[in-house]
Amino acid sequence: MRIFVLNGPNLNMLGKRDPAQYGSQTWDDIAQLLIKTFPAHQFAFFQSNHEGEIIEQLHELVHQPEAEGFIGNFGGYTHTSVAIRDALDMLKIPKIEVHLSNIHAREAFRHTSLTAAVCNGLISGFGAQSYVLGVRALEEIHKSNKG
Amino acid sequence: MRIFVLNGPNLNMLGKRDPAQYGSQTWDDIAQLLIKTFPAHQFAFFQSNHEGEIIEQLHELVHQPEAEGFIGNFGGYTHTSVAIRDALDMLKIPKIEVHLSNIHAREAFRHTSLTAAVCNGLISGFGAQSYVLGVRALEEIHKSNKG
Amino acid sequence: MRIFVLNGPNLNMLGKRDPAQYGSQTWDDIAQLLIKTFPAHQFAFFQSNHEGEIIEQLHELVHQPEAEGFIGNFGGYTHTSVAIRDALDMLKIPKIEVHLSNIHAREAFRHTSLTAAVCNGLISGFGAQSYVLGVRALEEIHKSNKG
Amino acid sequence: MRIFVLNGPNLNMLGKRDPAQYGSQTWDDIAQLLIKTFPAHQFAFFQSNHEGEIIEQLHELVHQPEAEGFIGNFGGYTHTSVAIRDALDMLKIPKIEVHLSNIHAREAFRHTSLTAAVCNGLISGFGAQSYVLGVRALEEIHKSNKG
Amino acid sequence: MRIFVLNGPNLNMLGKRDPAQYGSQTWDDIAQLLIKTFPAHQFAFFQSNHEGEIIEQLHELVHQPEAEGFIGNFGGYTHTSVAIRDALDMLKIPKIEVHLSNIHAREAFRHTSLTAAVCNGLISGFGAQSYVLGVRALEEIHKSNKG
Amino acid sequence: MRIFVLNGPNLNMLGKRDPAQYGSQTWDDIAQLLIKTFPAHQFAFFQSNHEGEIIEQLHELVHQPEAEGFIGNFGGYTHTSVAIRDALDMLKIPKIEVHLSNIHAREAFRHTSLTAAVCNGLISGFGAQSYVLGVRALEEIHKSNKG
Amino acid sequence: MRIFVLNGPNLNMLGKRDPAQYGSQTWDDIAQLLIKTFPAHQFAFFQSNHEGEIIEQLHELVHQPEAEGFIGNFGGYTHTSVAIRDALDMLKIPKIEVHLSNIHAREAFRHTSLTAAVCNGLISGFGAQSYVLGVRALEEIHKSNKG
Amino acid sequence: MRIFVLNGPNLNMLGKRDPAQYGSQTWDDIAQLLIKTFPAHQFAFFQSNHEGEIIEQLHELVHQPEAEGFIGNFGGYTHTSVAIRDALDMLKIPKIEVHLSNIHAREAFRHTSLTAAVCNGLISGFGAQSYVLGVRALEEIHKSNKG
Amino acid sequence: MRIFVLNGPNLNMLGKRDPAQYGSQTWDDIAQLLIKTFPAHQFAFFQSNHEGEIIEQLHELVHQPEAEGFIGNFGGYTHTSVAIRDALDMLKIPKIEVHLSNIHAREAFRHTSLTAAVCNGLISGFGAQSYVLGVRALEEIHKSNKG
Amino acid sequence: MRIFVLNGPNLNMLGKRDPAQYGSQTWDDIAQLLIKTFPAHQFAFFQSNHEGEIIEQLHELVHQPEAEGFIGNFGGYTHTSVAIRDALDMLKIPKIEVHLSNIHAREAFRHTSLTAAVCNGLISGFGAQSYVLGVRALEEIHKSNKG
Amino acid sequence: MRIFVLNGPNLNMLGKRDPAQYGSQTWDDIAQLLIKTFPAHQFAFFQSNHEGEIIEQLHELVHQPEAEGFIGNFGGYTHTSVAIRDALDMLKIPKIEVHLSNIHAREAFRHTSLTAAVCNGLISGFGAQSYVLGVRALEEIHKSNKG
Amino acid sequence: MRIFVLNGPNLNMLGKRDPAQYGSQTWDDIAQLLIKTFPAHQFAFFQSNHEGEIIEQLHELVHQPEAEGFIGNFGGYTHTSVAIRDALDMLKIPKIEVHLSNIHAREAFRHTSLTAAVCNGLISGFGAQSYVLGVRALEEIHKSNKG
Repeated sequence: MRIFVLNGPNLNMLGKRDPAQYGSQTWDDIAQLLIKTFPAHQFAFFQSNHEGEIIEQLHELVHQPEAEGFIGNFGGYTHTSVAIRDALDMLKIPKIEVHLSNIHAREAFRHTSLTAAVCNGLISGFGAQSYVLGVRALEEIHKSNKG
Repeated sequence: MRIFVLNGPNLNMLGKRDPAQYGSQTWDDIAQLLIKTFPAHQFAFFQSNHEGEIIEQLHELVHQPEAEGFIGNFGGYTHTSVAIRDALDMLKIPKIEVHLSNIHAREAFRHTSLTAAVCNGLISGFGAQSYVLGVRALEEIHKSNKG
Repeated sequence: MRIFVLNGPNLNMLGKRDPAQYGSQTWDDIAQLLIKTFPAHQFAFFQSNHEGEIIEQLHELVHQPEAEGFIGNFGGYTHTSVAIRDALDMLKIPKIEVHLSNIHAREAFRHTSLTAAVCNGLISGFGAQSYVLGVRALEEIHKSNKG
Repeated sequence: MRIFVLNGPNLNMLGKRDPAQYGSQTWDDIAQLLIKTFPAHQFAFFQSNHEGEIIEQLHELVHQPEAEGFIGNFGGYTHTSVAIRDALDMLKIPKIEVHLSNIHAREAFRHTSLTAAVCNGLISGFGAQSYVLGVRALEEIHKSNKG
Repeated sequence: MRIFVLNGPNLNMLGKRDPAQYGSQTWDDIAQLLIKTFPAHQFAFFQSNHEGEIIEQLHELVHQPEAEGFIGNFGGYTHTSVAIRDALDMLKIPKIEVHLSNIHAREAFRHTSLTAAVCNGLISGFGAQSYVLGVRALEEIHKSNKG
Repeated sequence: MRIFVLNGPNLNMLGKRDPAQYGSQTWDDIAQLLIKTFPAHQFAFFQSNHEGEIIEQLHELVHQPEAEGFIGNFGGYTHTSVAIRDALDMLKIPKIEVHLSNIHAREAFRHTSLTAAVCNGLISGFGAQSYVLGVRALEEIHKSNKG
Repeated sequence: MRIFVLNGPNLNMLGKRDPAQYGSQTWDDIAQLLIKTFPAHQFAFFQSNHEGEIIEQLHELVHQPEAEGFIGNFGGYTHTSVAIRDALDMLKIPKIEVHLSNIHAREAFRHTSLTAAVCNGLISGFGAQSYVLGVRALEEIHKSNKG
Repeated sequence: MRIFVLNGPNLNMLGKRDPAQYGSQTWDDIAQLLIKTFPAHQFAFFQSNHEGEIIEQLHELVHQPEAEGFIGNFGGYTHTSVAIRDALDMLKIPKIEVHLSNIHAREAFRHTSLTAAVCNGLISGFGAQSYVLGVRALEEIHKSNKG
Repeated sequence: MRIFVLNGPNLNMLGKRDPAQYGSQTWDDIAQLLIKTFPAHQFAFFQSNHEGEIIEQLHELVHQPEAEGFIGNFGGYTHTSVAIRDALDMLKIPKIEVHLSNIHAREAFRHTSLTAAVCNGLISGFGAQSYVLGVRALEEIHKSNKG
Repeated sequence: MRIFVLNGPNLNMLGKRDPAQYGSQTWDDIAQLLIKTFPAHQFAFFQSNHEGEIIEQLHELVHQPEAEGFIGNFGGYTHTSVAIRDALDMLKIPKIEVHLSNIHAREAFRHTSLTAAVCNGLISGFGAQSYVLGVRALEEIHKSNKG
Repeated sequence: MRIFVLNGPNLNMLGKRDPAQYGSQTWDDIAQLLIKTFPAHQFAFFQSNHEGEIIEQLHELVHQPEAEGFIGNFGGYTHTSVAIRDALDMLKIPKIEVHLSNIHAREAFRHTSLTAAVCNGLISGFGAQSYVLGVRALEEIHKSNKG
Repeated sequence: MRIFVLNGPNLNMLGKRDPAQYGSQTWDDIAQLLIKTFPAHQFAFFQSNHEGEIIEQLHELVHQPEAEGFIGNFGGYTHTSVAIRDALDMLKIPKIEVHLSNIHAREAFRHTSLTAAVCNGLISGFGAQSYVLGVRALEEIHKSNKG
């Protein structure tokens, strides 16, 4: 399976962010973990701190949908971006929203997700494993779509 | 009249978005429609998915105000961007906010417009014709300013 | 096209209302403007300050739908009348809500529209031209329905 | 028993309204149903789309209270009219509020009833049978008042 | 002074309404009280249960402003009518809103007044005397405008 | 018709509860009233103060749907139980929600019903007769389903 | 009649406050106006900027109720003081709340009155005449209590 | 690893519930899926529709914590039960909240989770796979706790 | 005096719960404390994690009111249970609500009590002593009822 | 133990306040009750209607903390005073908030307590006995601090 | 420049308050810091815990405006006092609101400031330096007013 | 000290924006003012209208923290950007939020600051001097950190 992993703002800074919320691994560590854990899949990784770039990356996926699965962590834009939600809504492959921290156990303004409503599901609170679980979720959606 | 048409996020994707809300025309179709409908006007078209680029385009219009009329569809930023509102507020030419879909007939978070409050008026729900009507509105404001 | 134009409360008083919000034209001026601007269309004009009369006029249009397009400015009832919304919802011809003033730039209680949600679209803030633009919107809906 | 049945806005349009919510019977069908179902009762029927006429009809019932029971469906005014509530509050005979559709299963602005709070009870969601049940409720209140 | 006294819905029913809130006097009693208390003034009385008629009466006052003072009790419309507020806003003579009962000591939905915001002031809670005090308030505004 | 009547918390205590709200009849009185009033129907009665038992009783009805009609009074759970709503939603026979007292005329926290939204309709405020009316409502739904 | 007039915070500053809201008269002017207008009454005047002193003055009135009428303008405490409301609630003579400015036409935080709910009524928006009208209101309450 | 899987109200009804939200598998299908997918783990399954039984099962786990991981789907209690949250808070093994449907894409009252705030994380929207992913999450937490 | 002490969900787990909020005593410790502190009273203790059992225990007390005083700690149900409130409202002996922790100093969802509104009073924040104080409160109510 | 008892606004008026809420005892009765009930303790009593004096009395207690326990009834300031909360927060001896009436059973604006959040606990609804229970609570906190 | 520094409730207690929020300096330390830092200015210091005294001090400044600059820290009254806001609004010299702690980083009820809206600006979060910065702000306003 | 000054959207337009809110100086004027006022400090200036660029500039500061102080004016993003808040939270040098206008005296949507909660403090309302004061605040934090 070709899987596109999109990270939003501040996720390039893993390792520098509050380890109580985000763990001490860097994004490279997580990317390597995905690659090693799933040697049979092809990963494309994308990170941007720009709302506009995230939107345009989503557009590209709509146009050239080689990717068969999508994992997105929209960071702080999760809670505020109608524009990303609109872009995401156009993408018709299986989509998983992931978060490193448990967004329901933090400040009230992090309890809502504008973007999760147009994804297949949400995985939140497992650190790097949220991504691993996201891939497994895609595998299963894939299987059941085929079945 | 020189008319500046600014489109916000996801409007480059017309034709790919939910046709029930946005119609099946592409943005090029709409641009052509404007040019053909109004051969006497000069149009400048600008689209960006980036909040910052939209703001800067508005700044440019403030500095070099050749444009005599402005039509803006701020997409998902309509409902969330104080920064675009602030930029728009500086622009002193006639300004029309347009939407392809009828924003009052959709999700509650689309019923408010931060940006319409600093425009002359709002046209919402007529698909490509929202833009055509926007130009006609500019013509009339122009006429009445002259008169 | 036969077009029905319905005005709600206080719109018979144009010319006497705050010109900063409503302009200095009377309703007759606006009606004449429509007739002159669109000699090919037949207009029926109706104004009432009574919620009940507005509802009944809408019923009549449902029963004898000679009109092929509807333009409504429900004035103060826009923001409060479930009953007009229910009547309007029965009318199956193209419907445009118009406002002389920009309702999003006024008091908070004018930002919501119960009635716009059951119209094709909304045009707000262009004075008398809101009606003219409303007719143009009807022309285009008509054309595209035929096409 | 003499029973007064008051219908508010848009209820004269039954048969034309969305049958998924309101059924396909006309008001005459419902009136006939009541008359046939309850040959021993005398019915007076009143419909108005005017808030003011509804209020004045309620006043008349207060002055000449031949009616021994009241059934009211205030349509869209149910949710917005303090003035009808005030008039209804003066009427001291048994009062039943009825709705054809289940108001709790529709838009949020239909979940509240200003008028039900000053009635004996509420029957909502049974189409024409809401009226029949309303009469039966009156019969029972009558009986228990006598008992 | 010529004084116009406008009563809204249910005020024709005084004497029949809950005396704990509204006293036991009829409207005629109150009208006579005004006439006797102020023999030097000319009173015009108007009552309507129809929002539309109230609006139109206000329009008439705008057109033929013989009245030099206005006293209005908008009853249940006080709390819900944007349309009456809009009509009232056009009337440029001194305007007093009165209420028989103390609206701040009743249900929460009676604590707000859409109409008082466009009057000179509010007098609430003194039964028939609210009207008498309203006239006295007009006398004083009159005097101070002359002075 | 086989009719299942489900009562929620505190309804086994009728006769002991505030008679101003709930009347002075016991539940046995009401059950007898139903049996006598409708000798042609077969009634099954169930009462539980346990949210879980109510849910499980609803499950049983889903599995063995001999019942052709359902009447439910969920007592205090009406306003708070998402879990009962979910169970009720699975039951595909006609469902009537009933209340002894007029829930719209009591404390604000009783004005909402989570469960009524997944029933055919609601009958509230007629004491024991709410149940009788509920059965009549079922009869009519039955008839119209057959017709 | 002995009348107690209580002024709350900032009312000793009349003449210095924004004349658009409060007029240009000083409090002495208003006191003299009351004394001249009502030579038959005895006035006691009290002003304090201290919530506690206002409360204690109210206590004193409870203990030695020579005063037969009370006029209170609680200034900014009107909208925030539960403690003054509690004190005022103990005072069993006729009580009138007055305001110089029309509190319903100002900032939203001035639209509510905690104290008016335990007074006979409210007079707001007539400048110094609010006090004069307050005394007239007391006269009438007095008369009707005697009658 | 010994893993305890707790299901709340209505989850015994899988296969009967709306397949668009919950899929068409029964709970036994899901349990078998877990057992087959993870032959190395020992599973204990528990389902209850009773809030109290869920609480007491959580207590038992606190007392005899053989389980090394916990997966909970609290169904409708997720959104309303402070009492389950309090019980869950005492359990000090890794805890994962799972949902078959995507709770953020359903009714507003399902967007909040009282219980997720005291779990390690949340997995929502993947049907039966939400449980499989939950086990994988436990495996990883286990590993990292050991590491 | 015969005193009934009812504990709601999770209170059987004292000693295992967060000692910062609930102290380190077990419920047996607290029960012994009550028995030793008040040798002259007879205590009946009841604990349940089931909302329904709590309701039914309250019913039993209504039927056989040997108890002369009631102390209830409804745990997490305090904040959500209309059904327990309804049951409690039927019990006509003195009723004290107690909490081990200070509910006003914890999460916002614990600041409200549906049940305290139908008790004589509330004691919150004193650990085991909240119960002791509850008994003393009952003694005093008893005395004053006799006196 | 030296115990400081602070009473806020209107508590000097006990005996004059609504006996349904506050009982018929005066404050002297309550003070005597405390002295007689607890001959082994030394009481200092302080009452003020002034927010500022209450704050300063709290400051004095901070400076010269002879008192070993504090009982406070902040009357109407309980619900509105951030300033008293800030002063109270500095006082590091055991603190009990008491109320004569059951604040949860009165108007909604009395349900919240800004001050209880910085006390050890709250006792509300037992009339004079709330103070007695407050002393007993202090005794127990004292004992357990020593133990 | 003559500068008036007004401190509200609890600011006389600096040194005793939570040093994490307020630092460990006393008010005298801060006053000395101001005097030493700005030898060219004349300072008048005023502290009161009484809302009324603060109001009256503001009145005095209005009457005898020797002061050319005002620095105010209204402590807990910042968030609740309409009366202080009204007094402050009359003072026409430059006004700076200061806070020792960062009010936006504390409890939600401290995020709003009623008083800052009628000051020139706000400085919050710098401990004693908030005052020093306040003086510097006054110097600059002074300069620019002269320039 | 090396000081980094970050300006957000529209701050490059100073001189063109509403001078009543923002003054008539350009940003270059302000930068020169800072350089001249503080010759001993080294300033780095950065302005961006792009949320993403602001985030990335903050990241760079985290990586290469030569700057010893940070001054940020996030313009319209102040009120809406969770993503900037998250980036800012990683930066561990002293941080001051500044605003040219007094945000508490403008529209309600400008009264909240998501970003100020993770800064040391806020300075708002002093035009260009807000920046100068920000530098002085940094100097003092620096001094006290050293001391």
